[in-house]
Amino acid sequence: MRDLSEIRVEIDAIDNELIDLFRRRMDCAKEVGYYKKANNIPVLNQKREEEILAEVQEKGGEYGSAARLLFANMMELSRALQHNIVCSGQELRERITGAKEQIETENITVAYQGIKGANSFEAMCALYPNAAQLSCKTFEDVFDAVDDGKADFGILPVENSTAGSVSSVYDLILKHRFYIVGALDMRIEHCLAGLRQSSFEDIEIVWSHPQALSQCEGYIGKHNLAPVPKANTAVAARDVSLEKRLNVAAICSRAAAKEYGLQILDEGLQDNPYNTTRFIVISKQLYISPGANKISLCFSLPHVKGSLYNLLCRFNSLGLNLTKIESRPAKGKDFEYLFYLDFTGSVHSENVTDLLCQLSEEMPEFSFLGNYQEQ
Amino acid sequence: MRDLSEIRVEIDAIDNELIDLFRRRMDCAKEVGYYKKANNIPVLNQKREEEILAEVQEKGGEYGSAARLLFANMMELSRALQHNIVCSGQELRERITGAKEQIETENITVAYQGIKGANSFEAMCALYPNAAQLSCKTFEDVFDAVDDGKADFGILPVENSTAGSVSSVYDLILKHRFYIVGALDMRIEHCLAGLRQSSFEDIEIVWSHPQALSQCEGYIGKHNLAPVPKANTAVAARDVSLEKRLNVAAICSRAAAKEYGLQILDEGLQDNPYNTTRFIVISKQLYISPGANKISLCFSLPHVKGSLYNLLCRFNSLGLNLTKIESRPAKGKDFEYLFYLDFTGSVHSENVTDLLCQLSEEMPEFSFLGNYQEQ
Repeated sequence: MRDLSEIRVEIDAIDNELIDLFRRRMDCAKEVGYYKKANNIPVLNQKREEEILAEVQEKGGEYGSAARLLFANMMELSRALQHNIVCSGQELRERITGAKEQIETENITVAYQGIKGANSFEAMCALYPNAAQLSCKTFEDVFDAVDDGKADFGILPVENSTAGSVSSVYDLILKHRFYIVGALDMRIEHCLAGLRQSSFEDIEIVWSHPQALSQCEGYIGKHNLAPVPKANTAVAARDVSLEKRLNVAAICSRAAAKEYGLQILDEGLQDNPYNTTRFIVISKQLYISPGANKISLCFSLPHVKGSLYNLLCRFNSLGLNLTKIESRPAKGKDFEYLFYLDFTGSVHSENVTDLLCQLSEEMPEFSFLGNYQEQ
Repeated sequence: MRDLSEIRVEIDAIDNELIDLFRRRMDCAKEVGYYKKANNIPVLNQKREEEILAEVQEKGGEYGSAARLLFANMMELSRALQHNIVCSGQELRERITGAKEQIETENITVAYQGIKGANSFEAMCALYPNAAQLSCKTFEDVFDAVDDGKADFGILPVENSTAGSVSSVYDLILKHRFYIVGALDMRIEHCLAGLRQSSFEDIEIVWSHPQALSQCEGYIGKHNLAPVPKANTAVAARDVSLEKRLNVAAICSRAAAKEYGLQILDEGLQDNPYNTTRFIVISKQLYISPGANKISLCFSLPHVKGSLYNLLCRFNSLGLNLTKIESRPAKGKDFEYLFYLDFTGSVHSENVTDLLCQLSEEMPEFSFLGNYQEQ
């Protein structure tokens, strides 16, 4: 058996040769790119790629699958180069260049779902304290208000740390072809809110949204309270103030309690102290502020082996960090998946815009949802 | 400018050399594996890997990042080889080997959350028609019932096509260190269910879970019905049958309507016809049936560039298909992510068990949640 250091000398020598060959291969890929540009040939040649990969797998022997994987990556990287050379994705590039920079925060109307004191309302007040507020009954109504021009922006929850993603909001963004122009992570704190004349000992019944009730199960059980569902936490608070029953309290936010003149009888009711909801701001128009640091994408991938992996190769080769990835079966399409992906970055970096343009050209479905600042 | 075919001749020649070098490098990696085994040296040598990658990036010139990415993949594949040589992950290997094969379906008790007619109840009846049924108030109660031995299995929703993942169920699986031993995708169909003596024209008020109400918003608006929240759809059905008001109907499943003797006044109420919920079966004990075809994992990844990509390299090199991937920020830990991942496969394939054992050794946190048959 050779000593470790001896084997490593051989590995280092192999690596040097590998690097040289790889550089030569990438130079060739560039040359192919210029040829394709001059002769108006599409970058992707699925058939040739498949042939090469099959041969590599064969020649790789016992390491055939591993060799195939490396070559698939090299082709991914070659295609990225070539897309840049032929300037793929012009439509998206123009949209990005044409984005407005500054979101007005004065003289605007923001639509939210729920009534005053709802979590969305609170998020809106944090982001746009001077905006006119438009209360909507449903998520869809928020989108419609923005579509009709009744509101400039809409604010919506997209993810809760305990309940997971609100998939329907993503569906609506895609349906309306809107953009995400801002985001806020807000801690959700459940309070016990009763009438001014109630004391903690009076409370026998609690009203709230079923999810809030379930997040406070431990508390409700311990204090032997009877839970009653309401449409949401703010409605629960409003109804407590309207119905004036001494033995009833709402489980709601501090803001909702304040909004409806209730007294906070206890707080931090949730079993899990870590309860955060992410809100996003949607807009008909694309805004990309100078401080934008987060990009959201949605795309479909055919359910073929390695398609996600090959895609991530592109992000990784630019050193980009994903902050969210989520797959969902594409509706009504077997074996096809929809992906939601967030990553840290900005279109002000040329690399990143190039990547987005490449993907917009290659993916069967690709939506650039926005580049915004996270608060 | 050279012709495309000329450039391709050069590329093909480079590829042949690359494959040879790659095979030699993998042979060396194997030799290192045997050396490490003989000398009891850990497989991962982060420092050496980092040094090599930094050098590769440097030597790669304008293609430095791309070269680094390829080498990171090669190291990932080398480590996979070496883990197999040193037989990493013995603890998990023994757990998998020790799994029971056959789930009893007679003389068992299955716990579910909700009351008779709830969606979980229906899923349970579909999977275990002959089981004794244990109704629980909360998800946590289902886990406790299985923990205490009051139930052999529990059934829980984990994902809805419109509402997204039920993250809290995953949290509870990890907390209790339970296994997933079965899964069922069930179509959720909302019906309008009233008293036998009601007719469609009588209905003015609908009771249901707020989420079901929101999924039927279009229908409720069109027929000018007043929505009233209930704890869940089955409770809505039960209450309609108990309170006997001619103008009130529940929005619930066909099964719930039947359970509480209600009449179906209309069906297919949901705005989105594609509404599926995935249920899983949980167990204290690991069962892996001969027909198991789906594996679920949960693991954390440090928020370093490319960590997810490098991990997927392992799956891709074995030709495994991911069917779900979802990231969540790890609670209370900045810059660390928790991933839920499902893929098609079975531990009856040696490759797959090897992969799981490798990952159990390398990941900072790694949970094998189960290998089960999807229905």
